[in-house]
Amino acid sequence: MNRSELIQQIHQKENYLCIGLDTDAAKLPPHLKDKPDAVFQFNKAIIDATKGFCVSYKINTAFYEARGVKGWEAMEQTVQYIPSTHFKIADAKRGDIGNTSAQYAKTFFETLPFDAVTINPYMGEDSVRPFLEYNNKFAIVLGLTSNEGAHDFELLHVCHTRKKQEVHAEIGKHHLKVYTEELEEEEQAKDEPLRYLYEMVLEKVSSWGTPDNLMFVAGATRTPELAAIRRIVPDNFLLVPGVGAQGGSLKEVSEHGLNKDVGLLVNVSRAVIYASAGEDFAAQAGIAAKGYSEKMQSFVAHR
Amino acid sequence: MNRSELIQQIHQKENYLCIGLDTDAAKLPPHLKDKPDAVFQFNKAIIDATKGFCVSYKINTAFYEARGVKGWEAMEQTVQYIPSTHFKIADAKRGDIGNTSAQYAKTFFETLPFDAVTINPYMGEDSVRPFLEYNNKFAIVLGLTSNEGAHDFELLHVCHTRKKQEVHAEIGKHHLKVYTEELEEEEQAKDEPLRYLYEMVLEKVSSWGTPDNLMFVAGATRTPELAAIRRIVPDNFLLVPGVGAQGGSLKEVSEHGLNKDVGLLVNVSRAVIYASAGEDFAAQAGIAAKGYSEKMQSFVAHR
Repeated sequence: MNRSELIQQIHQKENYLCIGLDTDAAKLPPHLKDKPDAVFQFNKAIIDATKGFCVSYKINTAFYEARGVKGWEAMEQTVQYIPSTHFKIADAKRGDIGNTSAQYAKTFFETLPFDAVTINPYMGEDSVRPFLEYNNKFAIVLGLTSNEGAHDFELLHVCHTRKKQEVHAEIGKHHLKVYTEELEEEEQAKDEPLRYLYEMVLEKVSSWGTPDNLMFVAGATRTPELAAIRRIVPDNFLLVPGVGAQGGSLKEVSEHGLNKDVGLLVNVSRAVIYASAGEDFAAQAGIAAKGYSEKMQSFVAHR
Repeated sequence: MNRSELIQQIHQKENYLCIGLDTDAAKLPPHLKDKPDAVFQFNKAIIDATKGFCVSYKINTAFYEARGVKGWEAMEQTVQYIPSTHFKIADAKRGDIGNTSAQYAKTFFETLPFDAVTINPYMGEDSVRPFLEYNNKFAIVLGLTSNEGAHDFELLHVCHTRKKQEVHAEIGKHHLKVYTEELEEEEQAKDEPLRYLYEMVLEKVSSWGTPDNLMFVAGATRTPELAAIRRIVPDNFLLVPGVGAQGGSLKEVSEHGLNKDVGLLVNVSRAVIYASAGEDFAAQAGIAAKGYSEKMQSFVAHR
């Protein structure tokens, strides 16, 4: 699915909801647990009940890998079951040296029919490039994430190299020589001297691709920063996790994050798929998804 | 396998060689290609021919995932085939919010019998913690990687917040007041004011664990930095990729990276497993591994 098709789906369905299939085998409703393909059956029922109220599904690969080969079978079945009208995201947080990233790109874009995969940018350009070389596929690169750990590195200030300078001053007949250390910007941005690492990531990574093959992850628990993110990447879609169980506000995310094309995919995982732990899990998931979807209607209408 | 068992294996075998099983189905020798379990058969022959000359195997998960369910089957077969005397690394570069990282830890430490998994630190502490909660298992966190892209973020300077200060000076009878912008360290390290992001990663992450559950990735193509890395993490094992096809020097890596316990696992992938593309691939891999192993003997003997 390409960018304009995604935008079309959003306007047609009047929402920008992505449902996260973080399906934990330990949390399945009791009546499903003993089925041999229980995870797929669960996902299938969730998809059937929610597909009218969302534009995208996000498969969190960790929950599938944890079950080994059986888990990968369930992931394959699930991504193949998602309708072609929905944008399919592998939330895999991959990234490695070039020849290895090329294998990950093959995994999610060829072996499996995903439209997008989440990428960790730490290792730099050659770790991201292979994901950008496919037509109508997207790398969704981590910018600022929704977890506490974002403070450890993403929210560190990056700089500047120091340069020692001599300053001379005449005061009356006295000559004063002072050594000072000047800050020399590594980049131009003279008027915004100190930047967070995540801002530098957004700036650099956005120059490697276009809004047609590149999106960014921006956590919903950081709404004050969403406006800053929008300034750096005005046109790219943002995948926003953290609404629901993690406590992010849909209203605030929308107010700060929407752009002229909508430009948001707001992900909700646990608050939809575990809306009920009983036999009515799918029906309750449908109701929860409908709720989020309806709250998005007016925001879409104003674009 | 715990740390002292690994050190014992290194002294017993007199090497610190890790062989990377980046097995690409497209590069298998012609006589193996048509076998249904060709990748496992290739790995099995490589392991049989090299296990006397190395202490560790590293499975690059990307090459297995690229083949989907079949690939995961080959990975399971391979890790189960590696002798218990060898340290088993999943080179997976995982990392996500806490509840998701816990699933990845389960994948590699419970579902699969790996001793260690490589971790991307970008998302911070809660993304690393779940991997540190297992006994006798290791998180191998990315510090400085061997690829070009390391310059994009890992080798950025992190700082410091700026603080405006007044400086007063008396020169003869004149009083001079100067405004200056002082750098205020976010951390203590007063005498090493500007640090690279990767150095900050090593400092912070090393405080989250101990050398008994934490190692770091340090690329062999960056030998000048290896000495700096050793100063920051004197006791942790370093996994050093980049020797062989990527051009890193074993001698320089050893001179800068060894510590009192040896403390290195030097990985070679392509230069061993693709030493020959013919029917003699395993024998040639054995010869290549023996060559690296012998070069390591004198370094081990001096510890």
